[in-house]
Amino acid sequence: MKDKKMIFEKPQKVLFRHCDPAGIIFYPRYFEMVNDLVEAFFAEALDWPFEELLRTGGVPTAEIRLRFAAPSRHGDRLTLMLEVTRLGRASMVLNFRASADTTGELRIEGASVLVHVDATGKPTAWPTPIRTRISTEMDKIS
Amino acid sequence: MKDKKMIFEKPQKVLFRHCDPAGIIFYPRYFEMVNDLVEAFFAEALDWPFEELLRTGGVPTAEIRLRFAAPSRHGDRLTLMLEVTRLGRASMVLNFRASADTTGELRIEGASVLVHVDATGKPTAWPTPIRTRISTEMDKIS
Amino acid sequence: MKDKKMIFEKPQKVLFRHCDPAGIIFYPRYFEMVNDLVEAFFAEALDWPFEELLRTGGVPTAEIRLRFAAPSRHGDRLTLMLEVTRLGRASMVLNFRASADTTGELRIEGASVLVHVDATGKPTAWPTPIRTRISTEMDKIS
Amino acid sequence: MKDKKMIFEKPQKVLFRHCDPAGIIFYPRYFEMVNDLVEAFFAEALDWPFEELLRTGGVPTAEIRLRFAAPSRHGDRLTLMLEVTRLGRASMVLNFRASADTTGELRIEGASVLVHVDATGKPTAWPTPIRTRISTEMDKIS
Repeated sequence: MKDKKMIFEKPQKVLFRHCDPAGIIFYPRYFEMVNDLVEAFFAEALDWPFEELLRTGGVPTAEIRLRFAAPSRHGDRLTLMLEVTRLGRASMVLNFRASADTTGELRIEGASVLVHVDATGKPTAWPTPIRTRISTEMDKIS
Repeated sequence: MKDKKMIFEKPQKVLFRHCDPAGIIFYPRYFEMVNDLVEAFFAEALDWPFEELLRTGGVPTAEIRLRFAAPSRHGDRLTLMLEVTRLGRASMVLNFRASADTTGELRIEGASVLVHVDATGKPTAWPTPIRTRISTEMDKIS
Repeated sequence: MKDKKMIFEKPQKVLFRHCDPAGIIFYPRYFEMVNDLVEAFFAEALDWPFEELLRTGGVPTAEIRLRFAAPSRHGDRLTLMLEVTRLGRASMVLNFRASADTTGELRIEGASVLVHVDATGKPTAWPTPIRTRISTEMDKIS
Repeated sequence: MKDKKMIFEKPQKVLFRHCDPAGIIFYPRYFEMVNDLVEAFFAEALDWPFEELLRTGGVPTAEIRLRFAAPSRHGDRLTLMLEVTRLGRASMVLNFRASADTTGELRIEGASVLVHVDATGKPTAWPTPIRTRISTEMDKIS
């Protein structure tokens, strides 16, 4: 059996705003990109946009790591990829990759752990429709 | 023998700019704080400010991870701590911690790997004065 | 004769990353949005992307102002609009507006002055193809 | 009679994080600096820190403009200055300046309008102790 995964992708052009005096992405901007990617995943793949989700709870990031495999320059066109690699009762492990569109070169890879919390900040089981949607997608791919 | 370390600390008040709609630090802002801390470490502890260092090379972050142990709220006073835990020929491993000043509660812990590169981006040995300064500090503590 | 203008628009959803503890856009993020809009205008409307333009010069912002007519909340869908309202020898006046898609409510309006500079930072006439393209568009609308 | 003003100053080193591929401050970062300056003014000069003020209302910026008189480079040491130039019933006009410490060269000048609002977002008179403190300072200088 192969790994079960749910995959989500977005294009991202490297903008002036992302770059540092060396002309490459300043790494905290990658974490902003990854946060935008997770927000788009919840809105577009799970139909559960953050602006709705935040009314009753949240999905704080418990930990995150990124490895910067090669520099990305202003104007580069990247594809950002997110995979759900593990779905816990109230948590989710996400893997991230970004590659350059022209060469396929890997630019970043990493992972994070998200936790679903209620309005008081207590870890809370994922709603059934969300769990079902992710599980179904993960089964499709396996 | 205890671990050999070189330690550097800075206070950081949690500002409006750092916080998200949940009223806590938005995690990409922690990476900006950590980057400021590394920049202050090079300027103040190593006497090798980034604006000087960048004329002949750089110290890109190869990888970084942070774990968000507890949320930090607007107005909290934190102490950010950096330790050099390993000094390679052209690399350096840094550990990070942030704690709340009033309670001592741990807010983040993590680590990064920095690489010293020349103007072409090739890994290059740390300059002798920098290596000596860090080694001396690490020996003092051990 | 009506005002001569060249108009450029982009949709922008208000993301988690843009918002402050009050749940509305933190105003420095509006300036990032406006900068992205200008970058997209040069790339898409003028076929002169910043990553190319920056090889021989730049278009620094000499001054900018924004008025925040009404708050924008997380999840709001905005349309950002840029108009070239004056084209000087080496400068350009841009007007900005953002409105909510659902209600049409004005959220921001403002203006900036850009200056075209060469590699030494000296103001330099716009290249002829750029001047022609903008003038043609401005004439069409008038 | 001279202008009545209340003045507040802070030093600010230009950090790596503030700079763009041209090696100078990316202008949205100036707006972040100015916001930090206003936050420090409320905390240190008015003894009314934002984290306290936000429990019962807010001080949204209604409009802001900055003129970038000369570029600021990574490593430059600036002094940021804020002046209260007008105190309305529920509003305040602030002027801003930043100058280079070594040369005194003006880098930015501008102004903003802040409005004091209650928890519902409605403009509300400044609390008496705040009004008194600002008025007293303004009289001292005039």
